[in-house]
Amino acid sequence: MDFHEKTLSKDYKFKGEVVNLRVDTVKTPGGNSATREIVEHPGGVAIVAITDEGNIVMERQYRRPFDDILYEVPAGKLNYGEDPKECGMRELEEETGYKAKSFESLGFIYPSPGFSNETLHLYVAKGLYQGEMHRDKDEYLDVEEAPLQELVDQIIAGTISDAKTVVSLLKVNELIRRNKI
Amino acid sequence: MDFHEKTLSKDYKFKGEVVNLRVDTVKTPGGNSATREIVEHPGGVAIVAITDEGNIVMERQYRRPFDDILYEVPAGKLNYGEDPKECGMRELEEETGYKAKSFESLGFIYPSPGFSNETLHLYVAKGLYQGEMHRDKDEYLDVEEAPLQELVDQIIAGTISDAKTVVSLLKVNELIRRNKI
Repeated sequence: MDFHEKTLSKDYKFKGEVVNLRVDTVKTPGGNSATREIVEHPGGVAIVAITDEGNIVMERQYRRPFDDILYEVPAGKLNYGEDPKECGMRELEEETGYKAKSFESLGFIYPSPGFSNETLHLYVAKGLYQGEMHRDKDEYLDVEEAPLQELVDQIIAGTISDAKTVVSLLKVNELIRRNKI
Repeated sequence: MDFHEKTLSKDYKFKGEVVNLRVDTVKTPGGNSATREIVEHPGGVAIVAITDEGNIVMERQYRRPFDDILYEVPAGKLNYGEDPKECGMRELEEETGYKAKSFESLGFIYPSPGFSNETLHLYVAKGLYQGEMHRDKDEYLDVEEAPLQELVDQIIAGTISDAKTVVSLLKVNELIRRNKI
């Protein structure tokens, strides 16, 4: 059976600076009509930056949806049409001051495929050297460095909850174990 | 410096069946006013169900935001106020037909903390036995079983992209390695 739904209509309810929200009316594989609420997002990048000492560059950043400070790898939103790798290199330098000699893809993830088309491109950066920190207006964050194994222990203990951070650090951990990084 | 933003106003632009969208006006730590687009979501659960043969129960499901079939662990949305564990046990049985003797927490993740308050509760289910499959109207999916190591290889190769699936399988992989499952 083909599970694809046929689009009957798309109705935009909100168009914003970051997200758009639309309600699609679809025909299901069973022939019924149904509505689907979809949040359109430009996507973004997340970067595991590894220092020459083997530490990971981390950030503590305020996240409005939770009104709380989260512990995350450096990340940023894509501008529409922007190359994800260029975006990742720019965001890493702007937020942490680091440039990287090596900047390789770790794949991508769909954070919330049930309701959003957001796609996050993951990278691992090595050969770090000092660039120029330059944060966006109204962007406040602290930068720290921590050993990967300590961060993996925190993930297992449940004290790191940001999905892109968990995915990218556990992927790097598995790649190191396989001697692929 | 305290990074918390002070709420000046909350303006609901859309209230739907699954998500609400609001635009907050806030005062930043630097004293400027700024707007934040927030998608409210009820949250959900995802389950790593391990058969007695050591295989993982997986699903292939259509995801409207990508107009594509994704390969995921069983998951479902929370009803507001519902206990996540009860929800997880119900969704596992409804979607796959499996009940579980053991149903333990794997923690939780925030899939998209930049714009959504969605929280996903992760579980590992063992001691599976046959219950009663009962899918929602307009819910179409295929259920399969696959060895964990094959799924981890697919994650590393980049062919599994759903964040909750990557997080929960890599966590289970790490816990098995530490003899904690």
